[in-house]
Amino acid sequence: MKAGFTTQKILANSRRKRLNRRLKLLKHKRCKISLNQIVLRCTVIPRSITRRSKKAGLPPGTIVHVGEKRRAAVKLSVISYDGVNFQEQEVKTVDEALALRKKPSVMWLNVDGVHQPEIIEQIGKSFGVHPLVLEDIANTRQRPKMEDFDDYLFVVLKMFRFDEKDDETKTEQISLILGSDFVVSFQESEGDVFDSIRDRLRNNKGRIRKAGADYLVYSLMDAVVDNYFMILEKLGETIEEIEDKLVTNPTSETLQTLHDLKREMIFLRKSVWPLREVISRLEKAESPLINKSTFVYLRDVYDHTIQVMDAVDTYRDMLSGMLDIYLSSISNRMNEIMKVLTVIATIFIPLTFITGIYGMNFEFMPELGQPWGYLVVLSVMLAIALVMLVYFRRKKWI
Amino acid sequence: MKAGFTTQKILANSRRKRLNRRLKLLKHKRCKISLNQIVLRCTVIPRSITRRSKKAGLPPGTIVHVGEKRRAAVKLSVISYDGVNFQEQEVKTVDEALALRKKPSVMWLNVDGVHQPEIIEQIGKSFGVHPLVLEDIANTRQRPKMEDFDDYLFVVLKMFRFDEKDDETKTEQISLILGSDFVVSFQESEGDVFDSIRDRLRNNKGRIRKAGADYLVYSLMDAVVDNYFMILEKLGETIEEIEDKLVTNPTSETLQTLHDLKREMIFLRKSVWPLREVISRLEKAESPLINKSTFVYLRDVYDHTIQVMDAVDTYRDMLSGMLDIYLSSISNRMNEIMKVLTVIATIFIPLTFITGIYGMNFEFMPELGQPWGYLVVLSVMLAIALVMLVYFRRKKWI
Amino acid sequence: MKAGFTTQKILANSRRKRLNRRLKLLKHKRCKISLNQIVLRCTVIPRSITRRSKKAGLPPGTIVHVGEKRRAAVKLSVISYDGVNFQEQEVKTVDEALALRKKPSVMWLNVDGVHQPEIIEQIGKSFGVHPLVLEDIANTRQRPKMEDFDDYLFVVLKMFRFDEKDDETKTEQISLILGSDFVVSFQESEGDVFDSIRDRLRNNKGRIRKAGADYLVYSLMDAVVDNYFMILEKLGETIEEIEDKLVTNPTSETLQTLHDLKREMIFLRKSVWPLREVISRLEKAESPLINKSTFVYLRDVYDHTIQVMDAVDTYRDMLSGMLDIYLSSISNRMNEIMKVLTVIATIFIPLTFITGIYGMNFEFMPELGQPWGYLVVLSVMLAIALVMLVYFRRKKWI
Amino acid sequence: MKAGFTTQKILANSRRKRLNRRLKLLKHKRCKISLNQIVLRCTVIPRSITRRSKKAGLPPGTIVHVGEKRRAAVKLSVISYDGVNFQEQEVKTVDEALALRKKPSVMWLNVDGVHQPEIIEQIGKSFGVHPLVLEDIANTRQRPKMEDFDDYLFVVLKMFRFDEKDDETKTEQISLILGSDFVVSFQESEGDVFDSIRDRLRNNKGRIRKAGADYLVYSLMDAVVDNYFMILEKLGETIEEIEDKLVTNPTSETLQTLHDLKREMIFLRKSVWPLREVISRLEKAESPLINKSTFVYLRDVYDHTIQVMDAVDTYRDMLSGMLDIYLSSISNRMNEIMKVLTVIATIFIPLTFITGIYGMNFEFMPELGQPWGYLVVLSVMLAIALVMLVYFRRKKWI
Amino acid sequence: MKAGFTTQKILANSRRKRLNRRLKLLKHKRCKISLNQIVLRCTVIPRSITRRSKKAGLPPGTIVHVGEKRRAAVKLSVISYDGVNFQEQEVKTVDEALALRKKPSVMWLNVDGVHQPEIIEQIGKSFGVHPLVLEDIANTRQRPKMEDFDDYLFVVLKMFRFDEKDDETKTEQISLILGSDFVVSFQESEGDVFDSIRDRLRNNKGRIRKAGADYLVYSLMDAVVDNYFMILEKLGETIEEIEDKLVTNPTSETLQTLHDLKREMIFLRKSVWPLREVISRLEKAESPLINKSTFVYLRDVYDHTIQVMDAVDTYRDMLSGMLDIYLSSISNRMNEIMKVLTVIATIFIPLTFITGIYGMNFEFMPELGQPWGYLVVLSVMLAIALVMLVYFRRKKWI
Repeated sequence: MKAGFTTQKILANSRRKRLNRRLKLLKHKRCKISLNQIVLRCTVIPRSITRRSKKAGLPPGTIVHVGEKRRAAVKLSVISYDGVNFQEQEVKTVDEALALRKKPSVMWLNVDGVHQPEIIEQIGKSFGVHPLVLEDIANTRQRPKMEDFDDYLFVVLKMFRFDEKDDETKTEQISLILGSDFVVSFQESEGDVFDSIRDRLRNNKGRIRKAGADYLVYSLMDAVVDNYFMILEKLGETIEEIEDKLVTNPTSETLQTLHDLKREMIFLRKSVWPLREVISRLEKAESPLINKSTFVYLRDVYDHTIQVMDAVDTYRDMLSGMLDIYLSSISNRMNEIMKVLTVIATIFIPLTFITGIYGMNFEFMPELGQPWGYLVVLSVMLAIALVMLVYFRRKKWI
Repeated sequence: MKAGFTTQKILANSRRKRLNRRLKLLKHKRCKISLNQIVLRCTVIPRSITRRSKKAGLPPGTIVHVGEKRRAAVKLSVISYDGVNFQEQEVKTVDEALALRKKPSVMWLNVDGVHQPEIIEQIGKSFGVHPLVLEDIANTRQRPKMEDFDDYLFVVLKMFRFDEKDDETKTEQISLILGSDFVVSFQESEGDVFDSIRDRLRNNKGRIRKAGADYLVYSLMDAVVDNYFMILEKLGETIEEIEDKLVTNPTSETLQTLHDLKREMIFLRKSVWPLREVISRLEKAESPLINKSTFVYLRDVYDHTIQVMDAVDTYRDMLSGMLDIYLSSISNRMNEIMKVLTVIATIFIPLTFITGIYGMNFEFMPELGQPWGYLVVLSVMLAIALVMLVYFRRKKWI
Repeated sequence: MKAGFTTQKILANSRRKRLNRRLKLLKHKRCKISLNQIVLRCTVIPRSITRRSKKAGLPPGTIVHVGEKRRAAVKLSVISYDGVNFQEQEVKTVDEALALRKKPSVMWLNVDGVHQPEIIEQIGKSFGVHPLVLEDIANTRQRPKMEDFDDYLFVVLKMFRFDEKDDETKTEQISLILGSDFVVSFQESEGDVFDSIRDRLRNNKGRIRKAGADYLVYSLMDAVVDNYFMILEKLGETIEEIEDKLVTNPTSETLQTLHDLKREMIFLRKSVWPLREVISRLEKAESPLINKSTFVYLRDVYDHTIQVMDAVDTYRDMLSGMLDIYLSSISNRMNEIMKVLTVIATIFIPLTFITGIYGMNFEFMPELGQPWGYLVVLSVMLAIALVMLVYFRRKKWI
Repeated sequence: MKAGFTTQKILANSRRKRLNRRLKLLKHKRCKISLNQIVLRCTVIPRSITRRSKKAGLPPGTIVHVGEKRRAAVKLSVISYDGVNFQEQEVKTVDEALALRKKPSVMWLNVDGVHQPEIIEQIGKSFGVHPLVLEDIANTRQRPKMEDFDDYLFVVLKMFRFDEKDDETKTEQISLILGSDFVVSFQESEGDVFDSIRDRLRNNKGRIRKAGADYLVYSLMDAVVDNYFMILEKLGETIEEIEDKLVTNPTSETLQTLHDLKREMIFLRKSVWPLREVISRLEKAESPLINKSTFVYLRDVYDHTIQVMDAVDTYRDMLSGMLDIYLSSISNRMNEIMKVLTVIATIFIPLTFITGIYGMNFEFMPELGQPWGYLVVLSVMLAIALVMLVYFRRKKWI
Repeated sequence: MKAGFTTQKILANSRRKRLNRRLKLLKHKRCKISLNQIVLRCTVIPRSITRRSKKAGLPPGTIVHVGEKRRAAVKLSVISYDGVNFQEQEVKTVDEALALRKKPSVMWLNVDGVHQPEIIEQIGKSFGVHPLVLEDIANTRQRPKMEDFDDYLFVVLKMFRFDEKDDETKTEQISLILGSDFVVSFQESEGDVFDSIRDRLRNNKGRIRKAGADYLVYSLMDAVVDNYFMILEKLGETIEEIEDKLVTNPTSETLQTLHDLKREMIFLRKSVWPLREVISRLEKAESPLINKSTFVYLRDVYDHTIQVMDAVDTYRDMLSGMLDIYLSSISNRMNEIMKVLTVIATIFIPLTFITGIYGMNFEFMPELGQPWGYLVVLSVMLAIALVMLVYFRRKKWI
């Protein structure tokens, strides 16, 4: 799913390009075709609902892919490991994958693509998964959640991944099924944040090969949460640039961008917030599938989640503050203009009155006949103008 | 009950018609006769209270229909099924319906219309239902709730249904009574969102025929919640169109519409929010009427309810943001006008002063006699005007 | 206590009179003497505190009447009933009342007036009531609450009653003491919302004669809550009328009225909110004084209380929205004025400049000598004016 | 401690003096020296922190007086009583006081002044009090709290007392130590709200002489809470006067006063809010030091506390509403001015244009030669002015 | 870490310097290079995230220093004490430190600097600390927290320290490990708020030498919390100075400063708030590592934490109020200007109209020929001007 963080996407093209150009791009895109901004809007909410409604009326447990249309074939890859052995293989069919399962090794079956119901169904049958879980896997609009089915745990996460190749932030739903000796992970498309985990598995780094399937699930969750920090870092850069912009040259696009950022914060918050509950429910579940020794790691992910929430909240406070500053600086600018213009008008209005007096056609106006009359009047007008200027300046009006 | 979602109703006439016309319609309706907008206002609160007050002073358990007046006869339809048998029949009287009850089949008695107290009373007696429950069925202003009476469970829901035929969104109260082998459902009028369930029953699709009465109740609740997504989708479209409108041409009708939408959100929220508690109480009730295997389905409905709440909250945030943007764009427009006009005035005021000077009638004004005087003054004035224009532009005031 | 809902009181005089006149009345009253508005203000808070302070320094349990001064004699009325017998009598003294108590009949002693400490004290002694309870009965500024003294329960409610005779809404504190076979109810003055209950007792309608004292207390509470709906209905009418007013002709009185209504909502909320806790504590108390079969009725009152709260909250949201609309429509009106006036000024300023030019007294101004000069200048000025008007209209400034 | 409620203090000088003068005083004081306003500000927060920091680095349990500097000698007074005996005496030293303790009488040792660490320490040793408690007694910036040390309970309260003599509201910290047969109370200075309690002890009024030390502590707390109502009453008067002021003549001082009142509300809230917890913890502590029969009295104080909170919250709501009204009335006034002035200018600008036309010096201007020209033009200008005035009035702009 | 409280830092240079200069400095810094203001911004959030992202992909338990770069060598100092013995020594290596450990003395190992992973790792191994704890020690962006590992407790705090030497406020993360007879404390750099504790240890002041390791941890926490008061005191001074500034001469820098202060409050709040939970979890942990007698001291720290929170909240309320006052005083100033200027213009516009009349060139204008015409007109104009001035003054417009 290409979506979510438009600003980041644009930022990524070239970090050094001026925000100015970015804002123009944003605006340009907004008012023309497909434009990421609109995509964001559609993705965040309406689309999730739109697609959802396709399902109305179907019996529960019907696997319907709800999400972006995809054409790429579903990719299956299997990693099977224990303290000693390690095997990694891409397979074509679910049966092939199952053939690679040999106890007591832990098998990690990763599925890239949830748009082929038959594959999900086959996996579901092989591992004895409840139809409603399969439905949730295909319907990529779930909130992060954890469900305990005794034989297996089902965890849904939202992965935010910055794809260096496409210069884009991608949002995907990750569904994890944790059994006693297997983990099945479903992603919406190829490409993920788990390369470092595969690395550690291959090279037997850290505890991961010695620990069980539960530790693998923890590692996957940890990788997902760690990538939130990357996204936050990028958002933070955008916010800082806009903050500079605010002081120097606030425009109505800045307001739009502030609101867009606020909305992205809300979106991010909604993706991260339920994670707290997911993890604390994992701990409280007292499932035999999770080792006690893994709890301390889960608590670590929990702490990171809270740190993400803290940062998101701080950003939101900053954005609110910036909104206030924007509004007050806009009105300050307007006031400045009005003030200066009014001062000019005010100085000339009494002067024009004086010229009006000596433009009157009375026959008996002694001043008019005086040779010095004109100069005196000019001088008086100059004096009045100067006095007013001095007065205004002393009052700090100009 | 014809009510609730005016905007949707209008939208439905022709999705492709411009929002512009819709807004005009809205406004038009508001200021003239019966107008849905007013209906909404009346329905959402005052009317519910108005009708409620009719009841003051009556002993508890008195069945009084509180809601829209209806004249259509109450319609009773019975579906009786088990894994093997299926029977569907429309009946005239409650006794006819009861005659069709044969254990161990599950009987679903659907009642279209709650404005005939005698029918509700008769059903109540036949199934041993508490008088207060019967009162709540007839009084269609209940909040969604669940009550456990050991022998049966009583569930109240709010159904939002888009009626394709009438191009209208209809809101109705659905009251469900779940016994060990029967389900009685009460609706305010004909037409509902349960056709797909009837279909599944007829054609023995999915688990529904094999499962018991509790699964039927779950299916009904699921159908109700699924239709909230349809409503949200429509609201989402309206919001998007208004958002475009906001940027291009905000009017005071836009403000009104924003507030109306906000109010509809509040109304929707109030209808959905208590559902969470209803479902979690169903789970906690530990009633023998509900199979453990149905719990996972209830949890699924629960998740959907939360997704609806999430979407509603996101819409509300968007609407608040749009309100801010509206207010600031209105004030921006005003500022633009004032600024340009003031600039024009400001340029001409000093020039008029100059013409005033040479309009004075002093006898001794050497410039006046010069043949080039007029041209010089004209040029000077042109120069002053240009300098001011350049200055204003450099200051970005125009 | 004459107080609380000024707006309703005025409304009641004649429902068909225009809000306009009402608002004028409101304003009029506010700026002159005693004026209900001020009474409201005094009653809602300051007075309750004022009177309260009289008590500072007295030992606890001292019965001091805190509330509106009253002179009418305290009225005692006794109803004694069971499934078979019914006796109703007005008595002069507490002893007379006690003489009518004959087990196992339920005795309902109703006391109209709490300003005679000696009577309260006497009743307290006869029924073995704690001095602090007696103090609370006389001090009519309690929040709704429920206290369990094992032998009896003490319940405080706020009754809002629309008195058809005086065309006024009256607020009174109702204190109820529930014993095993008696109920004592204290009101501040004559007139209440319990006539329908007395009717049901007299005519043996519904369960009431068969049920015990606890059911009577429930009936009293239900009658009190049912009357909140009447008050809400009236407030709803006022709100609707003001809403119409807002669009057509907002004045600063409208703002005042909005704030007054908001304050009344807060007052109503404070009276209703604690009721929730009162009822749920009645359920949790597990007092032998309350039959299990009464619980379902209490739950019904609880639901009504929540419906009242819901309506109050909706009204508050509506009032907030109306406040926003008011402020923006006020500023819109101002902007309209400023805009049109500025446009007029702006058109004439350049024209006046042109007249200024040809008013100059240069000797060499060729145009002045031309016979067509005057007409040309007039035409040019007309053209300029027209161009500006067209431009302004195209920009939608006028 | 002279502080807290400046407005009250000023009010007290003469209740009948106009608020106007008071506001001037406020403003005057604010901009000059010591001024109560500043004292308030310093007292409420900065000073509490300032003094607190003196303590940084000292070992815990070090008794350091944190609060206003005092020079008066600490005063010790002992009251010893039981149902039969009563003895009251002022003593010089702690030993003298202890000598008067004779079981089973209850001894109440009242200490006026906490600025002499040695006295607090001596008392602490005699009654076996923990050093941290002694530290809290001397450090008068505690929040109200209750601590259970098995042998004794430690309670901290904030006393607001209106001192008739000095015409001032005084805020003091009251620390109470409740043992099985003694109560020690610490005040910051002489003068308190306990005179009525001493009276009741002397004259054996009510239960107080028969009840134990716990009832005495309750009585002290009750006296403290009762005096909050006095303070609220005074604040209520100020608020009402400002409300009148708001409508008639809002100034920027009014805004300042509104904010000051809001701040005082926050201060009062902070002093009262923790009291709820203090009392409910007293109940839950199940300490043998508190008789069950005292619980109903504690609950009574609890109810009063909630009534105080309710009033404070209502006042805050009122102040917020008044702030809104203030802002809108300020902007209304401004708008009125601008409107009238602009209307005047607008009427004369077209007229001046007309005079400009006939001030032009074209040779061929037929109107100029007409004898009736001047009168016609004057009449036309008059007509234009009248038309504009009528138009403006019809539009309700003037 | 040099950061956090810029305003304080600047304030510290010379407390007597005028805020004016400070504000200029602030502004100056903001718009130029490195500038503390920016440092604050970077530190508070973006940086914490930036650095955090370095870690993405590493296996959990990898010790990576996340925080400000440091070059100074890590300093280890050991204090070993019991009631009788006391030994204090600076050591080079962890082994040296461990050699000084001799039971039953309590050993306090203080580590200044967490940027050398190997030292942390060595300490971790020696004391049997979990790798994730070591990771948290090096990653200085933790929220305050407490974790119970049975054998030891892990506590994270945020230390705010005003460094007199550098005239700077420094923020550091303090990590504490409490074992049965040892405490290890990690700081980011040299210099801390613990000197008074070292003093008390050296001189055997108070209970500290007699009590165990848990009391030492309490003392460290107490010292950290006590220093928050110092920071608050400084912030309070700044707030007061800005408040004065607000009334006399509000500028847009004031607004900026207000927002900066608000942000610092949020930062402080985030550092202090979790401390409440830390301490209450320490109490609830029921760890054998903490003596019951220490609980009363922990409760004392808890109370102080709440006092800090209270002060922070009060400051925030004050800042919000000041923001309101700022905005309204800005708009007041603007209104004043506009009003006076408009009044001037308005007076002269009618007068100019009159001069226009007598500037017209009609042949038949009888007034023009009158010798007193000129004087009369001048007088009339003067009269009009005076009447208008009087009118405006009476209306209080000028």
